[in-house]
Amino acid sequence: MNITEKFDLLGVDNAPGQESFQKDAPLGFRGPKLEGTPVDFSHGDVNAHKPIPGSLGLLTEGVVEGAAQAYTPYRGRNSILKDVADKISAFIGAKIDASSEIIFTPGTQGALFLAMGANMMPGDKAAIVEPDYFANRKMVEFFNGEMVPVPMDWNADAKKAGIDLAALENAFKSGVKLFLFSNPNNPVGCIYSYEEICSIAALAKKYNATLIVDELYCRQVYSGETYTHLCAQKEIPDNLVTIMGPSKTESLSGYRLGVTFGTAGIIERMEKLQAIMALRCSGYNQAVFGCWFSEPDGFMKNRIAEHQRIRDDLMAVVNKTAGVSARPTQGGSYLFITIPELEISLHEFIKIARVHADVTVTPGTEFGPQFLHQFRINFSQDHDAAVAALERLFRLMELYRK
Amino acid sequence: MNITEKFDLLGVDNAPGQESFQKDAPLGFRGPKLEGTPVDFSHGDVNAHKPIPGSLGLLTEGVVEGAAQAYTPYRGRNSILKDVADKISAFIGAKIDASSEIIFTPGTQGALFLAMGANMMPGDKAAIVEPDYFANRKMVEFFNGEMVPVPMDWNADAKKAGIDLAALENAFKSGVKLFLFSNPNNPVGCIYSYEEICSIAALAKKYNATLIVDELYCRQVYSGETYTHLCAQKEIPDNLVTIMGPSKTESLSGYRLGVTFGTAGIIERMEKLQAIMALRCSGYNQAVFGCWFSEPDGFMKNRIAEHQRIRDDLMAVVNKTAGVSARPTQGGSYLFITIPELEISLHEFIKIARVHADVTVTPGTEFGPQFLHQFRINFSQDHDAAVAALERLFRLMELYRK
Repeated sequence: MNITEKFDLLGVDNAPGQESFQKDAPLGFRGPKLEGTPVDFSHGDVNAHKPIPGSLGLLTEGVVEGAAQAYTPYRGRNSILKDVADKISAFIGAKIDASSEIIFTPGTQGALFLAMGANMMPGDKAAIVEPDYFANRKMVEFFNGEMVPVPMDWNADAKKAGIDLAALENAFKSGVKLFLFSNPNNPVGCIYSYEEICSIAALAKKYNATLIVDELYCRQVYSGETYTHLCAQKEIPDNLVTIMGPSKTESLSGYRLGVTFGTAGIIERMEKLQAIMALRCSGYNQAVFGCWFSEPDGFMKNRIAEHQRIRDDLMAVVNKTAGVSARPTQGGSYLFITIPELEISLHEFIKIARVHADVTVTPGTEFGPQFLHQFRINFSQDHDAAVAALERLFRLMELYRK
Repeated sequence: MNITEKFDLLGVDNAPGQESFQKDAPLGFRGPKLEGTPVDFSHGDVNAHKPIPGSLGLLTEGVVEGAAQAYTPYRGRNSILKDVADKISAFIGAKIDASSEIIFTPGTQGALFLAMGANMMPGDKAAIVEPDYFANRKMVEFFNGEMVPVPMDWNADAKKAGIDLAALENAFKSGVKLFLFSNPNNPVGCIYSYEEICSIAALAKKYNATLIVDELYCRQVYSGETYTHLCAQKEIPDNLVTIMGPSKTESLSGYRLGVTFGTAGIIERMEKLQAIMALRCSGYNQAVFGCWFSEPDGFMKNRIAEHQRIRDDLMAVVNKTAGVSARPTQGGSYLFITIPELEISLHEFIKIARVHADVTVTPGTEFGPQFLHQFRINFSQDHDAAVAALERLFRLMELYRK
């Protein structure tokens, strides 16, 4: 395989936010254009759900401070690392050593990339859940590894995520030494049960595998749900890092801030890779971490309540539409919606929806090649616009239903 | 080789800005501590040479604008790509198509990493100049390639950089398909002659090799010097990208902004890699590009004149010290200083200088293993503090001279 062939496999045409680059125009419009407020469900809307108050002020202070904030060590400025480590320690209930066990990264995407790059040699096998975040599988390809899929049946049991633990154990038995998964799961929004988390930890320990746990949405857990931090459990593997960041629930995505904490040896390798990847998470932007986990009273409670209301009202739209289903989100802002068989392909329908109904969604195939009847929406949107857009999308769908 | 062994080779202890992580304390102090204003020559001082006026205002406008600036396509926001492409086109004298030939990256380090990652498969040979930017060689290692060194004798001829063109041709003959170099050279600060640039372009074309030209310091060229943009010449290879950014001369490093322009196919692969590396150069920070190449009247002229004065006064310190030499910088803010044989190793001397004289410099070995009698300084510092610090360093050196 040469470099061109390798990158042909790493398509981004359907990646969230990249839809405007699609080269083939959609064909086969049926009926007039469906009018309504455009909604881009491929990512959250930080105009509808504003960044943490005070974030811009912290950034400005950082810029005004000058050199000390502009040039930090590659893993981040010591005083800010300490502050964030303390706040996350209190949140998860486990100690993080700020001098050796934490690093700031350019967004959580940067964290994932550094963590994968710091743990994979060409030919290595890595296990990835299907469905899971679209970049996970692509990173394995980029680092010249071999992806071993682990199925998740998210519809089997409302009290579990539904990961196939036997398949995970078989993967470890077949030589997999690295397992990356998101919890809450992206795109489904389900949360792994306590038992599932303990089983994953035990299996990783038994087979001496490295775990990368993407907890990006772990602060946005809806009422009645329980969340288990793998890193805070008694029995954990020797090599474990956890990824968080303020890009989603806290709407700070425009700053590209991410955090990884865990095994010191992995953090050290990530820092070495960061030294040649981007040097550091933008120095000035690191100042914005000051408001994270230090939000004004009620901010997080309100934010979760707002999103719960949007989830409920979108689920009502899903439930009243024949042949359409979704598991109600337990954590985060995603719904992974299953639709019936259409007379056109999923990709064709999604392209038509973007042009003909001003509704942008992400095809299920980004999360696993078998998800040909699913799309993901990020419902961190204006409530009324989101409900109207989903109704519009399903009206359009009726014109193409088999 | 396993992942731990691989990363053991990617040391960053001596990398610029990482010196505080050095684990072994220096030994063998001679004489009392040398007092003076601490100077960290490992990078520029943005307090001494301030960011472009108006940069913070543009950032603030970007944040206030909200979602449209926070979430851009992975290669960057279209309107800003267009603006920057037009400005660079006018500067270099060659057309850049904003829709296909340019991408924004997290700093120029991000640009280098994406360009290398988008052009290397495991086992590929890449040619790297010795001496050249420290990360270049490490990126080849990280991407599991094989580095082929190309010597540069920067003391042979004041009118040329001194690259060994026969060695470069031999490298191409031996199967090298990728050549990355910086111009002005980091760490020497020399500029490639017109003839050298044309020869490199012709060789790359002849052997169908890909060129990555790092022009980070190309706007900071001192009086009497001529700079040649390879990408603007008539005969250029089919695969060529050029890297620039506002982190150095313009003191915008804290924002992590970089640009790559050139062959559309390479830019497309870089975008695919960026999609899984950091998604995008921070959306808000991209707004700061608005002041780049749009500086207030006289800003660049003054900035270059200030640096020329610092260069001249540091060269006077070098020239009056027996056994010490450096080629006067033609472009950029670096001096690569050769010192005589000492009774201790270069690394030991540099560690002592940091602790015992408050002067931080970067060892020559970061730029090639053979540079055991050189160190690099970034003289974008306060003028008086820099001159005093270099004098202090040489006073300290006298105590260890063989």
